[in-house]
Amino acid sequence: MENFVFHNPTKIIFGNNTIKQIGKECKPYGDSVLLVYGKGSIRKNGIYQQVISSLTESGIDIVEHPDVQSNPVLSHVRKGIQLVKKNNCQVVCAVGGGSVIDEAKAICAGSVVDFDVWKFFTGKKSIKKVLPLTCVLTLAASGSEMNSGMVITNDEKKLKFGFGNKRLHPKTSILDPETTYTVPADYSAYGAVDAISHVLEFYFTTQLQFTPVQDRFIEGLVINIMECCTQLMKDLTNYRLRAELMWSSTLALNGLSAAGLGKVGFPMHMIEHSLSALYDVPHGAGLAVVIPGWLKFFKQSNPERVKQFGQRVFGYHGKNGPINQGETIKLFIDWLKRVGCPTTLRELAIPEEDISKIAENATSLAKIWRLDRYDQETIETILHLCR
Amino acid sequence: MENFVFHNPTKIIFGNNTIKQIGKECKPYGDSVLLVYGKGSIRKNGIYQQVISSLTESGIDIVEHPDVQSNPVLSHVRKGIQLVKKNNCQVVCAVGGGSVIDEAKAICAGSVVDFDVWKFFTGKKSIKKVLPLTCVLTLAASGSEMNSGMVITNDEKKLKFGFGNKRLHPKTSILDPETTYTVPADYSAYGAVDAISHVLEFYFTTQLQFTPVQDRFIEGLVINIMECCTQLMKDLTNYRLRAELMWSSTLALNGLSAAGLGKVGFPMHMIEHSLSALYDVPHGAGLAVVIPGWLKFFKQSNPERVKQFGQRVFGYHGKNGPINQGETIKLFIDWLKRVGCPTTLRELAIPEEDISKIAENATSLAKIWRLDRYDQETIETILHLCR
Repeated sequence: MENFVFHNPTKIIFGNNTIKQIGKECKPYGDSVLLVYGKGSIRKNGIYQQVISSLTESGIDIVEHPDVQSNPVLSHVRKGIQLVKKNNCQVVCAVGGGSVIDEAKAICAGSVVDFDVWKFFTGKKSIKKVLPLTCVLTLAASGSEMNSGMVITNDEKKLKFGFGNKRLHPKTSILDPETTYTVPADYSAYGAVDAISHVLEFYFTTQLQFTPVQDRFIEGLVINIMECCTQLMKDLTNYRLRAELMWSSTLALNGLSAAGLGKVGFPMHMIEHSLSALYDVPHGAGLAVVIPGWLKFFKQSNPERVKQFGQRVFGYHGKNGPINQGETIKLFIDWLKRVGCPTTLRELAIPEEDISKIAENATSLAKIWRLDRYDQETIETILHLCR
Repeated sequence: MENFVFHNPTKIIFGNNTIKQIGKECKPYGDSVLLVYGKGSIRKNGIYQQVISSLTESGIDIVEHPDVQSNPVLSHVRKGIQLVKKNNCQVVCAVGGGSVIDEAKAICAGSVVDFDVWKFFTGKKSIKKVLPLTCVLTLAASGSEMNSGMVITNDEKKLKFGFGNKRLHPKTSILDPETTYTVPADYSAYGAVDAISHVLEFYFTTQLQFTPVQDRFIEGLVINIMECCTQLMKDLTNYRLRAELMWSSTLALNGLSAAGLGKVGFPMHMIEHSLSALYDVPHGAGLAVVIPGWLKFFKQSNPERVKQFGQRVFGYHGKNGPINQGETIKLFIDWLKRVGCPTTLRELAIPEEDISKIAENATSLAKIWRLDRYDQETIETILHLCR
């Protein structure tokens, strides 16, 4: 195990009928809250009203900042910061999925300084303090509700940057599985794939040979997410399944699964970012296409790791003895299909001719993320395996 | 999944060569520390000197409170509290295993009030604030380094009471696996059994039927602890194995493995407490005897749960098809023997005639712990299965 620091002070309040606690969780930090949310789906399913009632009952003034988009953009973050400054908000409350929470984190960081928030993303300034953040999660996927990372797109410069700072941990996140009942089947599956992808990045990119605690933890999460997601497709308002998926996706990226693994990378996300940047592809759908291709590439250099994953996640026995790496990848693709995910570039209507353009885009990200192994040719090879 | 709150703000600094950070971790809380430790083994293996150097370099005054015993007693806790008050210590730093950390927690709670600390244990007073606590862990077992519980024995009244309060979470715990190199084989195995017992209590006493995330997490921890402990017996200064055992035992009781399981009990600990109270038995050795007997009792009412555990931890296939509950218990006993643990009351030299006396002692604890199912007769039945 490599040396590590694990410090995750976010308080999780998990379960049904918990949203009414949001007022009490905000109150210690101040009497004026910036309420950050998305395109209004929370108005339809009643979550908005529950949050407003709770905040109002706690005597908290509410300034609303709606219309966060699904890849949150800098210009909208800046508007939120202006609102905080103008209204003297003391707390930020995010109600939504990872995009909403990420934008709220950026607002928390940008509201307490007198320079532009983008300077944090380019590394010109570092975060010294932030406004306190509380969250009501409505989508099981990103893990942002219990970590210190955020991803924002600079819509002027067409740059998507992410980074983390320990001060960005939410103070409290409320996870009520019922908030995810209205997430449709496809997006529920994309969320599951997103959560799986986070732990797979750690699992397959660690350079260590002996990581049994993390391995079992990750394999367990993947098994559960796959099993629960499969069942959920037939039963979208099943509380038990929604609860499992919600907690699993939080655990997948709260620092625990990577603790002790040393240097890890995010090559699958790196390639997927280019897909969502260049085409209108939901993040989880893009990942469903990239993961199998990347695994086919990865198994050439590390067959044993893929084999271990398959034997533990899909069962030790294959058709003719122990499961091998090829069968592992096939079984994973079978599952992706079963829950309705695309698994090839073709299904995303991305033509073969575009591969070099996508690779070019991804190469620039590979440099920023210091994934030195991933040059234009390598990424093209992987993308061909995604066809 | 049941509703739950998970909030664990302890900062873990994990790895070799990390003890030198203890001064820096104490400093933000004050310039005067009460240093709590045990019978002096830390002087022999050099840990004491590392801690003193780091604290001194940070300009921190040190008041020493040594000689904590392995079931920490109230009279010694009171002495620590007096030292804090007399010297105006602002931080408590525990260097040791669970006993040292538990005593330090009691000192942290008792030093900021003007009544006797035992009132917290009897429920006459509740903890409102505490002194900040930092830890340097030297034994992989109790999990106290990352949780909010403590167990103290009132040596006047012969009562062993434990409870938890969220304010008792250590601020920082430093986990350097090398500190455990000098723990002998038997106590290393007892520590492993202690950690396993914590998750088994959760796993087998939850009333819920559907807990896949927690199940896989727990099964994974048990597999790792068993495998690493087995290897460790032949190689006590193997860093990788010591590291796995240390982090696994912390994870076993930091709130994660029980989150969402609803009401759980500690029946195996309840019976074991009577063994260590009445005989001079190390906690982990007592657990190694109680667990198999309790499992034999438990399997009568819940064979499927024991079977699942066996199939996932020891492999699905037994001699004649899938592993059953009897084979599961036998395989667990085999492992206990392999790492040198006693597995019967006989091996602890506790005669059959004592069973009713032990059960009587345990019955009183069952009442305090609200384990209503465990009357004198039931506990005697279990103890007979421990022979």
